[in-house]
Amino acid sequence: MALVNGNFAKLKESYLFSDIAARVKAFTEAHPDKKLIKMGIGDVTLPLAPSVVEAMTKAVQEMGHKETFRGYGPEQGYEFLHEAIAKYYARHGVELETKEIFVSDGAKSDCGNITDLFDDSNVILVPDPVYPVYVDTNVMRDRKILYMNGTPENDFLPMPDPAVKADIIYLCSPNNPTGAAYNKEQLKAWVDYALKNDAIILYDAAYEAFITNPEMPRSIYTIPGAKDCAIEFCSFSKTAGFTGTRCGYTVVPLQLTRKSPEGNEMSLNKMWLRRQTTKFNGVNYIVQRGAEAAMSPVGEKECGDMLAYYRENARMMMETFDKKGYKYYGGVYSPYVWVKCPNGMGSWEYFDHLLNDLAIVGTPGAGFGTMGEGYLRLSAFGTHEGTKEAMERIEKDNI
Amino acid sequence: MALVNGNFAKLKESYLFSDIAARVKAFTEAHPDKKLIKMGIGDVTLPLAPSVVEAMTKAVQEMGHKETFRGYGPEQGYEFLHEAIAKYYARHGVELETKEIFVSDGAKSDCGNITDLFDDSNVILVPDPVYPVYVDTNVMRDRKILYMNGTPENDFLPMPDPAVKADIIYLCSPNNPTGAAYNKEQLKAWVDYALKNDAIILYDAAYEAFITNPEMPRSIYTIPGAKDCAIEFCSFSKTAGFTGTRCGYTVVPLQLTRKSPEGNEMSLNKMWLRRQTTKFNGVNYIVQRGAEAAMSPVGEKECGDMLAYYRENARMMMETFDKKGYKYYGGVYSPYVWVKCPNGMGSWEYFDHLLNDLAIVGTPGAGFGTMGEGYLRLSAFGTHEGTKEAMERIEKDNI
Repeated sequence: MALVNGNFAKLKESYLFSDIAARVKAFTEAHPDKKLIKMGIGDVTLPLAPSVVEAMTKAVQEMGHKETFRGYGPEQGYEFLHEAIAKYYARHGVELETKEIFVSDGAKSDCGNITDLFDDSNVILVPDPVYPVYVDTNVMRDRKILYMNGTPENDFLPMPDPAVKADIIYLCSPNNPTGAAYNKEQLKAWVDYALKNDAIILYDAAYEAFITNPEMPRSIYTIPGAKDCAIEFCSFSKTAGFTGTRCGYTVVPLQLTRKSPEGNEMSLNKMWLRRQTTKFNGVNYIVQRGAEAAMSPVGEKECGDMLAYYRENARMMMETFDKKGYKYYGGVYSPYVWVKCPNGMGSWEYFDHLLNDLAIVGTPGAGFGTMGEGYLRLSAFGTHEGTKEAMERIEKDNI
Repeated sequence: MALVNGNFAKLKESYLFSDIAARVKAFTEAHPDKKLIKMGIGDVTLPLAPSVVEAMTKAVQEMGHKETFRGYGPEQGYEFLHEAIAKYYARHGVELETKEIFVSDGAKSDCGNITDLFDDSNVILVPDPVYPVYVDTNVMRDRKILYMNGTPENDFLPMPDPAVKADIIYLCSPNNPTGAAYNKEQLKAWVDYALKNDAIILYDAAYEAFITNPEMPRSIYTIPGAKDCAIEFCSFSKTAGFTGTRCGYTVVPLQLTRKSPEGNEMSLNKMWLRRQTTKFNGVNYIVQRGAEAAMSPVGEKECGDMLAYYRENARMMMETFDKKGYKYYGGVYSPYVWVKCPNGMGSWEYFDHLLNDLAIVGTPGAGFGTMGEGYLRLSAFGTHEGTKEAMERIEKDNI
């Protein structure tokens, strides 16, 4: 008799985005004349960069000719893309060997699939609020999960507690949903904690491209010792607008090892290579050429212009909240502004107010964890015009 | 202290293709003048069909314009592709609801990731010889694995043994590497066994497009009762030459349920949807448009021509082996011919003979399991010219 994995019954159904969709639908049906401004979703809106389109168009044609057709590629990605990524890291002060880089269809897949490499006895430490994939993928394996609270007191950047013994630590910086980003000193404290406890940090750097201050770390590997305790996930989704194009990468240092319950010292890099060659067949050639182009000098300039466009939206939002005297986080190194709901309103209460009275859609912070209650996430991935108008409405809001 | 998954240490290192590569390298260095014919690898060689190239070129341009740009798509695939796949199944006598179809980056990923849905206590039944992913992905979870032997007596199509109690059964038909395909009566015996034992069949139909005989099942769902016990994996890799383009699909019937160890009756369709929405972000839009085009009337005609081209190679091979009096399997409904090594030679012995004396590269059957010893797999994915010349060399071979 086949038995299914009963842990799936322990997963919380996420009603967040379906709840939002239902309320938005009710509003638009009742007010078909009102111009709704959507700032809820973390999806990009600008088209792919011209150099990316050019590279992918060329690659599609190559696939249509016998002489240039490509079949199975290496599961871990083509060397041309490894080299482009290694150079990208080098420009931000991190030296990587190409064998440390694994190309995939996105950071979400890798963040989920990396759980394959670990024993189920590990204690998992996860920030609250945070991207729900870290929790759900560990619930699927019934692992013990501890939470560390993001609060106004720690600027939504929880720091290590020496009294807490965790084995696997998820960090997301700049954070989704709060937009808060760790500085080097703070990240060093995490690396030191991990080294002391033989823990592993799973570092989600999907939003690193929003960091403009050269003093702020864009990679955990700018911290000494990180290659002995950290795996880093990154993506072209936000950097180059690849949310529908699908390409990410994971860095697993060659020197990173940990013991198995049986006492074997094992290489995480070799384990991930084995996992990927066994359960994955690589990213398609066309997209890898597009990703390579996004990291070329011209591509990086074009993608930089896209990032600047979104950053300007975030700036408008912060300007408005400053005027209103609303407390907020993020926005500086992130496409998300995490705003404290005014007048002590709850997340859903403020969501409903923005929707029904101002025709603006945000995301209730409570959807990202208990500590998100009383906050709302607004996304900078819209248009200048939409963002400007939304901010004018909020500025005039007399609650 | 983080502990890694010790089961990875139990995985056998696969030296098969690296061993082959090393021997081929030694040969070509010693004989740079000899024309080597490669029939070892299961990768396609013909370029993508013109209608696929056209659809993907158009989709790339759409991604480059604000009005037609697409960000995150549904994790389980776009409805346009679900509909194309449902119509494809309907043409082969199987009715599916689009919610039963999940688009992914390939059958290999799905065959591996499906293990997430099952409890580790299940007993796994796997054919020998077979595609090594089934075994390796279950070794990673330390599950008990039983083997069922493919032999000349059962035409490399092992049938259920009522004395064997298995919970999860992998079937691959047409089989990789033997090319053997189950008929309806044989598949019915498997469905009956699974229903009787509350087992689940994981049915890998990646090579179904090579079946031309309408009496032979291209899907397990042509068998009554299969929707109550089977999950089917399929792919555009061989059907449309997508090995480097990456697109597959998995069918999980809405009515398929099994119990958890806690006794909850759970829907496998809902579990797979939850798995995919949590650990996957969908296949890129461009490739989904290409896959849709491959299933259009023009695309299917073009892909059919490609399949016919490869089938002609298989026919040439079978003709030669008939003349030589070599026993073989597959070839009819498969791009693989599984030939018994002449004169009682071992797999590697015959491999070395073909390489060193005839300059032909095959794949030793022993690489696919114990029962593969004494056999060699030859692939029909090469050119007519190469296949013809290889067969002439084998015909003249005087061993």
